[in-house]
Amino acid sequence: MRVALIGVGMIGGSLLAAWRQAGLVAAASGYDVDPKALAAAADRGLIDHCAESVAQAVADADVVLVATPVGAMREVFAQVASALRAEAVVTDVGSTKADVVAQARAALGAALPRFVPAHPIAGKELPGVEHADGRIFNGRRVILTPVAETDAGALSRVEALLSRTGAAVERMDAAEHDRIFAAVSHLPHLLSFALVAAIGSAADGERRLGYGGAGFRDFTRIAASSPLMWRDICLANRAALGEELRGYRALLDRLQRAVDEGDAATLQQTFELAARLRRQWAAPADAR
Amino acid sequence: MRVALIGVGMIGGSLLAAWRQAGLVAAASGYDVDPKALAAAADRGLIDHCAESVAQAVADADVVLVATPVGAMREVFAQVASALRAEAVVTDVGSTKADVVAQARAALGAALPRFVPAHPIAGKELPGVEHADGRIFNGRRVILTPVAETDAGALSRVEALLSRTGAAVERMDAAEHDRIFAAVSHLPHLLSFALVAAIGSAADGERRLGYGGAGFRDFTRIAASSPLMWRDICLANRAALGEELRGYRALLDRLQRAVDEGDAATLQQTFELAARLRRQWAAPADAR
Repeated sequence: MRVALIGVGMIGGSLLAAWRQAGLVAAASGYDVDPKALAAAADRGLIDHCAESVAQAVADADVVLVATPVGAMREVFAQVASALRAEAVVTDVGSTKADVVAQARAALGAALPRFVPAHPIAGKELPGVEHADGRIFNGRRVILTPVAETDAGALSRVEALLSRTGAAVERMDAAEHDRIFAAVSHLPHLLSFALVAAIGSAADGERRLGYGGAGFRDFTRIAASSPLMWRDICLANRAALGEELRGYRALLDRLQRAVDEGDAATLQQTFELAARLRRQWAAPADAR
Repeated sequence: MRVALIGVGMIGGSLLAAWRQAGLVAAASGYDVDPKALAAAADRGLIDHCAESVAQAVADADVVLVATPVGAMREVFAQVASALRAEAVVTDVGSTKADVVAQARAALGAALPRFVPAHPIAGKELPGVEHADGRIFNGRRVILTPVAETDAGALSRVEALLSRTGAAVERMDAAEHDRIFAAVSHLPHLLSFALVAAIGSAADGERRLGYGGAGFRDFTRIAASSPLMWRDICLANRAALGEELRGYRALLDRLQRAVDEGDAATLQQTFELAARLRRQWAAPADAR
């Protein structure tokens, strides 16, 4: 198949690499607003052709993979729609889905049924196509959030392609997807950023940070993530994230009272519930 | 030297193991409310004598290491005081220091000058003396928080002993210690417990947890810590922890408004400050 990769970064590059390793790719074109990213992808043999526009990249493609930040997708979808071949399918790798579906609905026009929204639950801390790795999907999950208009043939085609990465592919409602990932991904990122910012804003903040140990390192590892990417994710999923944050803040209000009043029982109950659940939890990748 | 270990767990066992590896220990007695922990320490050759009381363990010791949960120290100090030899020194491994100093002041009596409060910034996730490891202090820090009454000879003796573990030993005011560790250790533990508890309390909580990925794993690793130990730490350091939690909640109030109102600038500024600080941060162990 001929692939067009729009947005040449770690996650899109990794998916293209996985498809290459599975022997699925006859040719790949790429487009990115950053010419350096495009050149790096060509250097690594991931793409055969550096396109000068979305439309040029898409013109010959059987499969279009949109891997830009979610905030840029509406404009990308509009350009994809203008050049898409009649049989081609479109998919994405966005971390939020209701927002991406809304952008697709607004901009893809007649091509909407051939768009299959996808979220691979995989990644690496290091951004950029130079860190692309086709093996990161192995044993992980990819969630598809098809809508009423989604063509059954396009859906099963994208599902089959994503299965070839070694991931388990499942389907879910976009709103449910966004609620779940607001809780287990977007909120922890916001909380981790917030802790480092709160400590760092204090007069002796940098000195204090120097005393962080292994627990601090783990808790704040995700605070080194891309600020712009996570700003966009938080905004794209603001309804569900806002709801989760509200519930979390209500629990913190109770824990503040427990700390202030020396209420051992409330602290113990909360910590015991959490420890029990966390000890029985295994990451999707660990469970396989 | 002859060591008495009161409270036979991972951290106390590790410190005793480090002293054994440095060739400092002629004999060690141990006491624990749990006879199984005591037997495990004897099986591993960490202690030579299983005492039947704190007083019995302490009677012949040159160095008394109190490694019980901080909530139990007052009672332990009272028993230590009743049996302590005139030249012996006492130290501890508690994660909070102002509270431990207050307990020592209330219970150690005339032995108070020979008590040197200590906090080794080292540990392992796995509790119990069977996970004791004398190497965990190497390249880490140990903080001493002596008080006005502390005897200079006792202080330099404990300082020298702790240096033999490979750790860098430094001195700090107990209240400052507690403020710093409220921020970089106690608060992150409370927040991590709270996230898992908040998600797990929802109707479909366990299903949602199943979708957590690598970021969730890192953020919540400390939520698998001992609920009782962390309940006691939060209570022992409630004044400083309460203050840090209040400041953090004020930042979350601002971030809630930013999410609800789609205020990209506030999210971006907070995330950028955090990412910059976290990327330049290196754990004390990494820095050496």
